[in-house]
Amino acid sequence: MSRTGRRPGAPDTRDKIMAVARRRFATRGYEATSLRAIAADAQVDPALLIHYFGTKEGLFAAATGLPAGLPEMFAAVEGTPLRESVEFLVRSYLQFVDSDQSRNAILALVRSAVSNEKAATMLREFLAAELLPVIGRLTEHEDAPLRASLVAAQLIGIAILRHVLRVDDVAKASPDEIAALAAPAIEQYLQ
Amino acid sequence: MSRTGRRPGAPDTRDKIMAVARRRFATRGYEATSLRAIAADAQVDPALLIHYFGTKEGLFAAATGLPAGLPEMFAAVEGTPLRESVEFLVRSYLQFVDSDQSRNAILALVRSAVSNEKAATMLREFLAAELLPVIGRLTEHEDAPLRASLVAAQLIGIAILRHVLRVDDVAKASPDEIAALAAPAIEQYLQ
Repeated sequence: MSRTGRRPGAPDTRDKIMAVARRRFATRGYEATSLRAIAADAQVDPALLIHYFGTKEGLFAAATGLPAGLPEMFAAVEGTPLRESVEFLVRSYLQFVDSDQSRNAILALVRSAVSNEKAATMLREFLAAELLPVIGRLTEHEDAPLRASLVAAQLIGIAILRHVLRVDDVAKASPDEIAALAAPAIEQYLQ
Repeated sequence: MSRTGRRPGAPDTRDKIMAVARRRFATRGYEATSLRAIAADAQVDPALLIHYFGTKEGLFAAATGLPAGLPEMFAAVEGTPLRESVEFLVRSYLQFVDSDQSRNAILALVRSAVSNEKAATMLREFLAAELLPVIGRLTEHEDAPLRASLVAAQLIGIAILRHVLRVDDVAKASPDEIAALAAPAIEQYLQ
């Protein structure tokens, strides 16, 4: 396979962009990092970042190893009845965190977030910018941001018990069993 | 202040026991560590451990820096109506995790659990032996262990968003605000 290095669109350009993005997100946080700044650092056209990663969230997902599309997953259920939406979301979330790729990415993210203030900031800002607003849109309560955060707390807690601490009952339960129990609880925050 | 070193009951005996316990819990896990083995390692009478720490859970709490009494907190509400119990528990839990001592202990525990397999085992076994059974006693469902674990996931998730990631809305909310929202959700698992 020939490697031309500098050609835009070559695999190593994509890798280089991700390496620059990882460094920028880690040192400046999610909010303060723009696609434009990453493009400048990586010495590529900003349009190339859009071409590869679509959005800043897509680039963040790629750079941190998280499969993209978690916020999109939540956005997709807007308009469907709440009970159905929530069950679908919990099941999708579990499929998402159960993949080998996610499991490792989650471990890596949690590991850096608890040991490194900048990584905690990066993860907090990503949640605040991309995930909490789409969960919050599922409810009309005035305190939607707090409710959305408590839903996120439940989901993150499940991932931690399932994949970090590996608490037996949570690690062994099927996505359907967990969704059947967690959906009515999560619905309480949103209804 | 005179320090007599070897006298049973002297502060440095207590410290020595905790140091031995920390090492044992970290290398062997919570389950496989007995008060008797710690006493033997520390070259003190097992009765002295009971005198200082009451139970293995008390010694674990002291050794890891967690205030003791989290399981007792849950055990205390057995027999009271569920809604009241759960609100009381969430408020007590938040007071518990909001103390400076707990906050640091939680950070340290989570930090070691995500980076070190033995620390994860220690924490998992502590949850399984001491905390999950008392939460599980609040419900009569056959799958009480899974339900109790999902309640623990919600509570641990709240502590992580409040003190590790410091997500704004969760970090700034009062214990009462969080309890008012989280209690009906948690009740769903237990009723």
